[in-house]
Amino acid sequence: MPDPAVTLRDVARRAGVHPATASRALNPETRQLVSDATARRITDAAAALGYRPNAVARSLRTRRSHTVGVLIPDLNNPLFPPMVRGLEDRLAADGYVALIGNTDGRADRERQVFEQMRARHVDGFAVATAQRRSPLLAEAAAEGLDVVLMNRVADGTGFPSVCADNELGARLAVDHLIAAGHRAIAHLGGPQGLSTGQIRYQGFEAAMAAAGVAVRPGLVMFAEAFTIAEGHRLGARLLAARPALTAVAAANDMLAVGCCEAIEEAGLSCPGDVSVIGFNDMPFMDRLRPPLTTVAFPHYRLGTEAAALLLDRLAGRRGLQGDPPPAVRLEPALVIRGSVAPPPR
Amino acid sequence: MPDPAVTLRDVARRAGVHPATASRALNPETRQLVSDATARRITDAAAALGYRPNAVARSLRTRRSHTVGVLIPDLNNPLFPPMVRGLEDRLAADGYVALIGNTDGRADRERQVFEQMRARHVDGFAVATAQRRSPLLAEAAAEGLDVVLMNRVADGTGFPSVCADNELGARLAVDHLIAAGHRAIAHLGGPQGLSTGQIRYQGFEAAMAAAGVAVRPGLVMFAEAFTIAEGHRLGARLLAARPALTAVAAANDMLAVGCCEAIEEAGLSCPGDVSVIGFNDMPFMDRLRPPLTTVAFPHYRLGTEAAALLLDRLAGRRGLQGDPPPAVRLEPALVIRGSVAPPPR
Repeated sequence: MPDPAVTLRDVARRAGVHPATASRALNPETRQLVSDATARRITDAAAALGYRPNAVARSLRTRRSHTVGVLIPDLNNPLFPPMVRGLEDRLAADGYVALIGNTDGRADRERQVFEQMRARHVDGFAVATAQRRSPLLAEAAAEGLDVVLMNRVADGTGFPSVCADNELGARLAVDHLIAAGHRAIAHLGGPQGLSTGQIRYQGFEAAMAAAGVAVRPGLVMFAEAFTIAEGHRLGARLLAARPALTAVAAANDMLAVGCCEAIEEAGLSCPGDVSVIGFNDMPFMDRLRPPLTTVAFPHYRLGTEAAALLLDRLAGRRGLQGDPPPAVRLEPALVIRGSVAPPPR
Repeated sequence: MPDPAVTLRDVARRAGVHPATASRALNPETRQLVSDATARRITDAAAALGYRPNAVARSLRTRRSHTVGVLIPDLNNPLFPPMVRGLEDRLAADGYVALIGNTDGRADRERQVFEQMRARHVDGFAVATAQRRSPLLAEAAAEGLDVVLMNRVADGTGFPSVCADNELGARLAVDHLIAAGHRAIAHLGGPQGLSTGQIRYQGFEAAMAAAGVAVRPGLVMFAEAFTIAEGHRLGARLLAARPALTAVAAANDMLAVGCCEAIEEAGLSCPGDVSVIGFNDMPFMDRLRPPLTTVAFPHYRLGTEAAALLLDRLAGRRGLQGDPPPAVRLEPALVIRGSVAPPPR
């Protein structure tokens, strides 16, 4: 007779695998995701221990809510609504709906929202709030949860992701400023704990080096958050470096908009005195004074691609074991508007 | 012995009440929401028919998911993100999360999203997509669902609502244009099937009449949707009326932004040739060329107030029977920026 005290964890330990792997091997629906040799080791261990899966727990585990948890920093950042729309529209085509949670970039909020969503039995997560080092996502990976990363990646989690090609985007921005005649170019960088902030900064450095233009001391600053307020604060500090500064490559549009505010507040003109280039091409950037020159990528499509990857995972389509997780990189494009001009004489 | 074939509907019919009322009277948790006389009539009817409530159905009915369905036209309209944030933040304080659905202003999409949310056992709805005549909301009212209306109202549903005082807002806009010297004032109106479109138009007419300024023929046009594209299309048509038109009072900012585009495209200047005033004060309206003069109301607070009304309903706090439903009206305020100037000589 099977021993009800034997758990999946015991089987996994005896077979030398992660409990999530044991669960997959013992579930006929997911059996094909595990290699034959591993599956045999696990079924042998289960038989030896007299393991009997708990049907109620299994039903709870396999029952689909057709609901997906979506974590974003802040819906008020205009970057996210089109991304969320893309995600929702693609999910809706497969009968899924989205629970949206805002974290305001705070790890405690992120964990709280994540747990609230789990308590509502979401089938998976689309996460746009990833820090590069994220204990929460590391735990989610260890538990085998279905997560797809949007816009930002986290180190070492192995989750599929969809992002812009941020390094290429940063290069497009720098090359455009250099072509306009700028050499004294500042980088108004994003938080370095976020992949977007880090990779765009690396792209800035690489593009400057490739063009043979030195990055001058004091002309790289990092914001604490991707906000207009931070762009304003650091923009004002950067302006002190004039005339050894004629252009600012900002790591996103919010920072660029704040920097433009600081330029205007100092009684200077953008682009007459200082050129500014952004990143993201958020909605309404074409209608600003001056219209913002920036690096665009398809936000709506980022959402649809993320949804497609998540639906793949939920359907058990994960590629071969050992394959790297899908990492979709969307091509950026320079959008030339009115905030970049040749440097003042 | 109770007859299992007797349903709640039979009890309601015998007692001469709506099934939702019968349900409330027979549920100890909601018994106090029904007057003593009515409750007695219903319990008598239940006893006479041998009605025995279905415990499983009741548990399904009374089990709280602590999830609320939120219907909005389109997250990409910048009016809605702050509203949704306010709603989510207030709901989160009581342990509720929001399922968001976009309807794109289409009744078929609205019904589909609504049904998807019901299938996920949401406890209630916050609806920002109301048409004045809404069969869907009329059905929801008849079924006794918990709904709160945001930004727009629907005729005759009896649901609580939170909106701007749209009539007063329209008056503030007209009075500002008249004070600047305009008399040839057009109304770029919203869809008249939406309460916002209708009430702002009525407010426009009332304010013009109160100021003794005639509304000139051909200077009132109604958009088919509150979009930039519709503002552009009708703005271009209105311009043909110059010089018998020197100012446009648009029913919202999206229409105003589209109208400004049409003015620029015609080689004219706003506000030099034509003044434009909007409504809503969406994010980024202060950063446009020219910065948009508009009528503001607190979007975030609209969301928190709507959440508070919905939580009241979910907690059974509905006021006395016969009281009109709460109708919160948020006070609008004129925001003077750069898109209104005196008329050209």
